[in-house]
Amino acid sequence: MNRSKSRFVFDFAEGNKDQKDLLGGKGANLAEMVRLGLPVPPGFIVTTEACTEYFATGDFPAGLDEEISAHLAACEAAMGKTLGEANDPLLVAVRSGAKFSMPGMMETVLNVGLNDESVQGLATVAADPRFAWDSYRRLLQMFGSTVLGVDAEYFSAALGEQLLDQRVDKDQELSVASLQALVASYKAIIRNHAGRDFPQDPREQLDLAIRSVFDSWNTDRARLYRRQEKIPEDLGTAVNVLAMVFGNLGDGSGTGVAFTRDPATGNQGVYGDYLEDAQGEDVVAGIRNTLPLAALEAIDKDSYDQLLQIMDTLEKHYLDMCDVEFTIERGKLWMLQTRVGKRTPEAAFKLAVRFVDEGLIDMDEALRRVSGEQLTKLMFPGFEVNAAVDAIATGMGASPGAAVGKAVFDSATAVAWAQRGEDVILVRQETNPDDLHGMVVANGILTSRGGKTSHAAVVARGMGRTCVCGADDLQVDVNGKCFSLPDGSKVREGEVISIDGTSGEIFRGAIPFHDSIVVQHFEGSDHEESQLATAVARLLAHADRVRRLSVRANADTPEDAARARRFGAEGIGLCRTEHMFLGERRQLVEDLIVAEDDRERDLALEALLPLQREDFERIFAAMDGLPVTIRLLDPPLHEFLPNLTELSVEVALAREQGAPDERLRRLLSEVQRLHEQNPMLGLRGVRLGIIIPGLFAMQARAILEAAAAQTARGLEPRPEIMVPLVATTDELAVIKRQVEAVADSVRQETGYACDYKIGTMIELPRAALTAGQIAAHAEFFSFGTNDLTQMTWGFSRDDVEATFLPHYLDEGLLSVSPFDSLDVDGVGELVRMGVERGRLSRPDLRVGVCGEHGGDPVSIHFFEEIGLDYVSCSPFRAPVARLEAGRAVLLAKGA
Amino acid sequence: MNRSKSRFVFDFAEGNKDQKDLLGGKGANLAEMVRLGLPVPPGFIVTTEACTEYFATGDFPAGLDEEISAHLAACEAAMGKTLGEANDPLLVAVRSGAKFSMPGMMETVLNVGLNDESVQGLATVAADPRFAWDSYRRLLQMFGSTVLGVDAEYFSAALGEQLLDQRVDKDQELSVASLQALVASYKAIIRNHAGRDFPQDPREQLDLAIRSVFDSWNTDRARLYRRQEKIPEDLGTAVNVLAMVFGNLGDGSGTGVAFTRDPATGNQGVYGDYLEDAQGEDVVAGIRNTLPLAALEAIDKDSYDQLLQIMDTLEKHYLDMCDVEFTIERGKLWMLQTRVGKRTPEAAFKLAVRFVDEGLIDMDEALRRVSGEQLTKLMFPGFEVNAAVDAIATGMGASPGAAVGKAVFDSATAVAWAQRGEDVILVRQETNPDDLHGMVVANGILTSRGGKTSHAAVVARGMGRTCVCGADDLQVDVNGKCFSLPDGSKVREGEVISIDGTSGEIFRGAIPFHDSIVVQHFEGSDHEESQLATAVARLLAHADRVRRLSVRANADTPEDAARARRFGAEGIGLCRTEHMFLGERRQLVEDLIVAEDDRERDLALEALLPLQREDFERIFAAMDGLPVTIRLLDPPLHEFLPNLTELSVEVALAREQGAPDERLRRLLSEVQRLHEQNPMLGLRGVRLGIIIPGLFAMQARAILEAAAAQTARGLEPRPEIMVPLVATTDELAVIKRQVEAVADSVRQETGYACDYKIGTMIELPRAALTAGQIAAHAEFFSFGTNDLTQMTWGFSRDDVEATFLPHYLDEGLLSVSPFDSLDVDGVGELVRMGVERGRLSRPDLRVGVCGEHGGDPVSIHFFEEIGLDYVSCSPFRAPVARLEAGRAVLLAKGA
Repeated sequence: MNRSKSRFVFDFAEGNKDQKDLLGGKGANLAEMVRLGLPVPPGFIVTTEACTEYFATGDFPAGLDEEISAHLAACEAAMGKTLGEANDPLLVAVRSGAKFSMPGMMETVLNVGLNDESVQGLATVAADPRFAWDSYRRLLQMFGSTVLGVDAEYFSAALGEQLLDQRVDKDQELSVASLQALVASYKAIIRNHAGRDFPQDPREQLDLAIRSVFDSWNTDRARLYRRQEKIPEDLGTAVNVLAMVFGNLGDGSGTGVAFTRDPATGNQGVYGDYLEDAQGEDVVAGIRNTLPLAALEAIDKDSYDQLLQIMDTLEKHYLDMCDVEFTIERGKLWMLQTRVGKRTPEAAFKLAVRFVDEGLIDMDEALRRVSGEQLTKLMFPGFEVNAAVDAIATGMGASPGAAVGKAVFDSATAVAWAQRGEDVILVRQETNPDDLHGMVVANGILTSRGGKTSHAAVVARGMGRTCVCGADDLQVDVNGKCFSLPDGSKVREGEVISIDGTSGEIFRGAIPFHDSIVVQHFEGSDHEESQLATAVARLLAHADRVRRLSVRANADTPEDAARARRFGAEGIGLCRTEHMFLGERRQLVEDLIVAEDDRERDLALEALLPLQREDFERIFAAMDGLPVTIRLLDPPLHEFLPNLTELSVEVALAREQGAPDERLRRLLSEVQRLHEQNPMLGLRGVRLGIIIPGLFAMQARAILEAAAAQTARGLEPRPEIMVPLVATTDELAVIKRQVEAVADSVRQETGYACDYKIGTMIELPRAALTAGQIAAHAEFFSFGTNDLTQMTWGFSRDDVEATFLPHYLDEGLLSVSPFDSLDVDGVGELVRMGVERGRLSRPDLRVGVCGEHGGDPVSIHFFEEIGLDYVSCSPFRAPVARLEAGRAVLLAKGA
Repeated sequence: MNRSKSRFVFDFAEGNKDQKDLLGGKGANLAEMVRLGLPVPPGFIVTTEACTEYFATGDFPAGLDEEISAHLAACEAAMGKTLGEANDPLLVAVRSGAKFSMPGMMETVLNVGLNDESVQGLATVAADPRFAWDSYRRLLQMFGSTVLGVDAEYFSAALGEQLLDQRVDKDQELSVASLQALVASYKAIIRNHAGRDFPQDPREQLDLAIRSVFDSWNTDRARLYRRQEKIPEDLGTAVNVLAMVFGNLGDGSGTGVAFTRDPATGNQGVYGDYLEDAQGEDVVAGIRNTLPLAALEAIDKDSYDQLLQIMDTLEKHYLDMCDVEFTIERGKLWMLQTRVGKRTPEAAFKLAVRFVDEGLIDMDEALRRVSGEQLTKLMFPGFEVNAAVDAIATGMGASPGAAVGKAVFDSATAVAWAQRGEDVILVRQETNPDDLHGMVVANGILTSRGGKTSHAAVVARGMGRTCVCGADDLQVDVNGKCFSLPDGSKVREGEVISIDGTSGEIFRGAIPFHDSIVVQHFEGSDHEESQLATAVARLLAHADRVRRLSVRANADTPEDAARARRFGAEGIGLCRTEHMFLGERRQLVEDLIVAEDDRERDLALEALLPLQREDFERIFAAMDGLPVTIRLLDPPLHEFLPNLTELSVEVALAREQGAPDERLRRLLSEVQRLHEQNPMLGLRGVRLGIIIPGLFAMQARAILEAAAAQTARGLEPRPEIMVPLVATTDELAVIKRQVEAVADSVRQETGYACDYKIGTMIELPRAALTAGQIAAHAEFFSFGTNDLTQMTWGFSRDDVEATFLPHYLDEGLLSVSPFDSLDVDGVGELVRMGVERGRLSRPDLRVGVCGEHGGDPVSIHFFEEIGLDYVSCSPFRAPVARLEAGRAVLLAKGA
């Protein structure tokens, strides 16, 4: 490293708030306050670059020592004291300060500069020996555990012994002599367990403390936190060295935290806490009760007025709600920290519009300040936070919200009980498409198997239904209609339980909860104008104005379609027809599959036609005037048949009992014939349409006859027929010809020439690679990013969740599941390629995405970047997608 | 179509042999003979462009009529006769002639120009009324069925009636009167069944015949043939119109076919057949016995000498063995066709080197004239063609060759019987990795289920073992040790059967067969110098000189490795370690899988280490000095465990019988735990290495300890450690660090620092897309094109064979399975991208392919084009790969 080029230390007076990369968040904001002329204790910042150099070599970079000396000298000059000097020592705080806040994750060392001599000087200068010895005691404890790595338990034990000896309850009650005894035992503990004495040299204390803050970047808990919060590993932390100021020097001293306005609502006013004769850590420890900030006015009017003036300055400067930490040392106010205040999702929306209304920011800026992630949290009901009940078990929070109801163990019961007005929670080992009817009517779904991408989880998220899955402490006994807990106790059918889809917790009984105000607003069921709902609505309206991406919803039923419309979707981007083949229609599908000749097959298709047509008529009615993209039948046929293993056991047992059932045996043989080693890679999608003559033509006929019927009724249906799992252009061409023939015939039969489009899913890597050829036959592409992710990565959603994906996330081999957020480098590359090649061959190609990524905020920004026309997601995600699509435009333009 | 720009008709004198696209093969070669001054009947060619215009509009293109008239007039002038003229008619033959020969697939109409009047003239001019009426009768029959679409059966029936009436056996014996009667009944048949009279207008006959030849391009059988032979659909056919010449005008007339030299060996000499007083169709019909061509010398010395002179001219001109068709009409020789002669694979090799030895062509040209497809056929034994025995059943010819042996139904019996010197054929419903020991010792493998890409087929091809699979007429009863046929008869254990891996036929008893001379030569077991083996060896040696691609083999055992070396492989490109985990070691793998803690797992790994080390030592010995690429464990763990369905049935039955076996139950629970919906998309490859601590490190240790041991013995092992199924660069980095740690430790323990490389399979689309990042950690890439094809297309080899792939091939939705020949547009695009991106980030990256495509001739040319460093294929394919790698260089340069 060329020393002459780098500076590793900056004075607070040299930086500003935009230098968070180099100075860390805390340091940059301290520098900003100095720039504003606010009272900040003198000090300096060791930069993140010094930290990353230190990581690279294991030592301070060349020149850092000298730079620290120079800045320390400046600090000493400003304070008129010398670090650790015997008679009137300067003490400093050494605090971490990374670019992104990582609360509680990294180290702080206070009172650096105290030693056996300067403690005496401090006692004299402060005229408070107890204060001085207590400060020294705290330094030894903090330095010993943090810097020298001594187990904190030893210090706690010694303190406990001293309290016992002295027969007092709190350390504040210890006498100076006791504190001195404690200092002696702490020093002995350090000698014994760190293998060295506590360093009496103040500068050595400082250097070791700085290193220790650097090192704390790499603790396990810090790494884990960064993975969870998606903070890059290579940023490193800055270190702030500030002159100590003391709020614990008796009357006229104190410390506090404050907000520039109400952090929950954005209302103007005085919000904060104050603690007399205390240090910041005492506020955090919560041992003593704090006063409301307003009480400071009576205690120290000058400081109070000055603080309010400073907060006004800060808010006008940052144009946002800020929080601050301050200390008053014997009547003198010091600002120790400020930042744009953290806020709840609810507050974020309210604050953003409030600042607009006060003329401080415009709607663009307001939109930048809220996020889809926050809106998602506002879309679900939540349990009352003060309901302190213990969970009986915890699974994975798979679909957020709070649900209360009677436990039921099968769909039929769920439907029956729900029809008579009961709230139910459907409990299963795992769910499959057959459970859909039960899931629709249940308040929540609880499974003992499967992860966040299991059937239960995916479907529940799609429906906005609360779901806890993979609660493997539960032994679910579907036949016995109960589940058991590890302690042997049971929950039986009909017993009320509560599940928290965010935390994954499961409770006995009914926990009080509140509905989502935002959802009530969309549904038109909110009875009064709420401040939150208004804020959300205004910001969504603005997002709608600025966004380029259109937002559609994935909806398979007229009910979902209607809801999607209420939630602002501008069409259906994915209507899956397989759900229309379940329930009582399943028998018809079985007939279709086991048909022995053309006649039997045609009969089955004819029976399905009117049912499908009615489905589509109702959906077109709900989506009058908006496009409805209908995917032809996609899943492997055997999904409509019984499970091979279960059926094999059943047949073997029947045979053993001398009761060979011919029907069962024939069914088994059909199931065996259709069994595939890897159904995800087998006979599905367009392959079905090609292998089973008439299947797709029947579906096309149902769609176009329904469209004709609704046109006749004066509606404007806009069907888009989508062919799934296309790998070659010829597959699409074959189906397209069939659809065109059906369209001709429907036109002649009904006299209505209904406009329709035909297009394809792009969900195989080959389809993306050969998109240019495929676009010749497709009017639109819809990227199925779930399947595309499966094929590109070579892992199936169902299987990886159960095996290696959690391990990969834990180990940091992946920072996020590619099923949750689009893998831009791999899958995204194929999407980008597919869009480019498709449009090159057909410039007016409409391109969208209908995988779950369509509702993921991060992914939406990528879809905006590569110029998709629309995203389609579950109805509940549609507002989130609208918001993020708007934000994506603004953020792409730059702040 | 702009008439002034296009010519649709060419005179023979205007074309040459290189215009096959426009003039078709037959026409271009006729034109070439005219250019050489050889006696070709006058005539002209209607081009393929006229044909494709006709297909586009359904009618002759504008101007074609006039062009035909002009060329017909020239032809008439040359012959001094007029088409169909009453007294001395010109007759013409109308023959198809596509670019690629499609023997017997398309139509020919002879004697066009005869009608009720001209037949009289012909009788007079030829002085042979029987000849004239027989010619007319033949025209009516051919025109009626071919051009007018009358069922040929009617004509046959009428002819049969006439023969019966006249009490004669052959149509040659019919009198003129009988032939006249037959002409009358044929005309009646046409009138009744075609709905029109036979056209008496000669020009109308000609035009209809030309249309009919065009139309014959689109018959089902022609389409099917083109699909099989991979001839493009859009070429269309040319039509040749030649003046008729007659070999059936009595003594001094005749017809024949001949080769310019021995088509089987390339020896010079007179080879061909001659038939006196006959037309070409009589030779084909095989009713009369032909004379050897040499006999013509005695019959008509002038024509004989002229023919030999012409054949010499043709061979010197074409510089290749040609075949010809000729007719002698009353002492005048006419050449009707020539082309470069078709030849057997054996003859192709012999002819190529013979032409080199005669100084006619160079070795480059010789290499261009043989193909890997031909060499493949020479690598397998074959049944004697004259062994006329009926097959008892037919399956799919999955791995070519001929095998004879006693039927056995399990691997243990196969091994036991083979050890006592018996030839065995292993018969199974389908095979799995457990059958490997039986497959190794069996002469052939026969299964009743599974297609050409089933386990049995793939493994058999890899071992060069004959295999017939999917013989679904067989009911295989493994427990009963027999299989049944549809007629109820049975073949029991020990009965001798023969299977033909090319035709898929299965025979009772031992059919005589011969070994492959080429293989014997490679193996050094041929006892005399064969002409074929020498030719193959010389051409391979030349291919080795010119090729750029290196050729390696896929080999898992020391025996395979040694064979690969004998077959010219320059290293092992894929050594699969999973096969080393089977047989008696399976128990250790089970222990590893069900290990309940680290200690149990480490014990299992420790037990496997010495076994793996020994495997590698022996392989390194066999491949001394050559690179050996070893793939770490790849398949899903549950492949080493029992089948879920079978085990579930077993446990259920045991429970039913009151005999619950605790061990079985625990095994079932483990199998259930590891069960995956889509194992191909699950926990396998590098994911295993990351999830099971120590597994890959154990394998790396076995490899590096084996390398150290062999280095100590003075050998030069060159291990390359290959990580399978990598999706992200971090996965590779984790394993690489483990391997490096093991390498350090082995170096310290043994004192030998053995050179090794570490690299990765590129078999997931994501790996190809992010190859730039991955190359940062990989010294080599090996494209696993089997998996890459599965993921890119989204279908699994196992499943698609059983379901839609055959249908797709039949329907022309695919022209070839992408597992047989690389899909250049899709999968090839990823390979190309992976190579480019990988080399951009690491210019010295070594890149190869180790999927089955490595041995596919067509795919090898693609791999040459995109600059791979090597291909790796099964040992038996290595010579094919060497040959095609050489040809690829020559063909890329241009002929």
